[in-house]
Amino acid sequence: MNTRNFISLLQDRWAQSTAVCVGLDSDYGKIPEHLKSGSVQEALFLFNTALIDATADAVCAYKIQIAYYEACGAEGIFALIKTAQYVREKYSAIPLILDAKRADIGSTNDAYAKAAFDVFGYDAITLHPYLGGEALKPFLDQKDKGCIILCRTSNNGAGEFQDLLVDGKPLYIKVARQVKETWNVNGNCAVVVGATYPKELEEVRTIVGDIPILIPGIGAQGGDVQKTVQAGKNSKGQGMIINSSRGIIFASKKKDFSDAARRETLKLRDEINQYLS
Amino acid sequence: MNTRNFISLLQDRWAQSTAVCVGLDSDYGKIPEHLKSGSVQEALFLFNTALIDATADAVCAYKIQIAYYEACGAEGIFALIKTAQYVREKYSAIPLILDAKRADIGSTNDAYAKAAFDVFGYDAITLHPYLGGEALKPFLDQKDKGCIILCRTSNNGAGEFQDLLVDGKPLYIKVARQVKETWNVNGNCAVVVGATYPKELEEVRTIVGDIPILIPGIGAQGGDVQKTVQAGKNSKGQGMIINSSRGIIFASKKKDFSDAARRETLKLRDEINQYLS
Repeated sequence: MNTRNFISLLQDRWAQSTAVCVGLDSDYGKIPEHLKSGSVQEALFLFNTALIDATADAVCAYKIQIAYYEACGAEGIFALIKTAQYVREKYSAIPLILDAKRADIGSTNDAYAKAAFDVFGYDAITLHPYLGGEALKPFLDQKDKGCIILCRTSNNGAGEFQDLLVDGKPLYIKVARQVKETWNVNGNCAVVVGATYPKELEEVRTIVGDIPILIPGIGAQGGDVQKTVQAGKNSKGQGMIINSSRGIIFASKKKDFSDAARRETLKLRDEINQYLS
Repeated sequence: MNTRNFISLLQDRWAQSTAVCVGLDSDYGKIPEHLKSGSVQEALFLFNTALIDATADAVCAYKIQIAYYEACGAEGIFALIKTAQYVREKYSAIPLILDAKRADIGSTNDAYAKAAFDVFGYDAITLHPYLGGEALKPFLDQKDKGCIILCRTSNNGAGEFQDLLVDGKPLYIKVARQVKETWNVNGNCAVVVGATYPKELEEVRTIVGDIPILIPGIGAQGGDVQKTVQAGKNSKGQGMIINSSRGIIFASKKKDFSDAARRETLKLRDEINQYLS
């Protein structure tokens, strides 16, 4: 296997003028019925590969939400692995994010890192900050792999803990600072801030400098593209992984689902680029 | 399937005078070689069922650390599901904890909850608090399922965020308060506090009242049994799920591994009971 470096792959994609990340939240219950003549894993794989073929020239990354695959048991895990293999073989320039929001003590994180990077075949993983950087070393130490730390999440109730004041600043600001100042020694960190909170996104951008920000919450969750781009771009007019899942992959639930997905992907890409120029 | 209620099962086990939880952190690389003549999933299943048969009369719960199973790909997930089926069929009185440390936005947590409870077949799951109680509703709303929230973890670097002062009290205290006061409306919550921090354990016990506390960190991680029991017991002299993983399941890596596991389980059970009496 050639060495793939998550941040380099991402920068090369940004240079192709796209900040769109398609979220393959492939909920089996919602995928088009005509794909379900075979096994669950076949249906998931058919769905994902059709979406990938339809959007690969227009994305900066794919993000797989592992929860939907776990909900299909071992078959889901097969599909998740096969999807990564497919992208690596056919679209080797596109980085793959495993949205798994993991974090445990160090010895357990060794196993999670092995699973995400070596067994599942992904280039980056989303991580909870709660156990601290010492616990996350098995991820942070892998220079070629992306470590994407939850900072300010997109959900309504995100503020319950994330807005608590620590030394006069919200906790998510403290998380952003720790990532920037002490966790990013290998230059492989990114943070998550929801598009539903543009003010917080702008604050985090100021703190983390040019570090990539994964931005969920566009589309179904209601985040505004213009506000997101203006708040989230870095000094190079890049640095954003703007994710849309449901708004793209379930734009149609019929036979034209991949055409609809392409249309929504291009629309989002162009809208983002309009506010970047 | 009969209705199983996590907290009721746990209380019945405590009434049998055991607070020991055996952690099936079944790292394939460490399990005895003589079990590895078949597939990976067969080896994991043989290992787990031998440990379960050897310890079932002496435990209050089994805790499966999913990271070690994910590191074996789909085969690991098969083993994890089959292990739960085995316990439910043969030892139906014993509750099963999925140590997965999940938490995402609500729609994603729907899928995680389906995976953990319906597909994998576990009675309880460990959860990160960072996204707040609103996001965790798909777990919290299931009255029969245990929601075990990370409060003060056992790792060396746990304090990086967990000790940050919020209104003059550490963040983990705030988490414990939220669980007790607002998340536990269905009486199905528990919290995690590491045995490596007995002072913090005592503080959390004061705050959460009789809510169960899952206590990892005994054994390989260095937690002291006497201090743990004195700090962690509730008003009924119960309420603790004291987990040991490596110290029990890898007590021997030879053919006598299950005998050694039983010996260590009984030793820990008796030591705990000595300090409870």
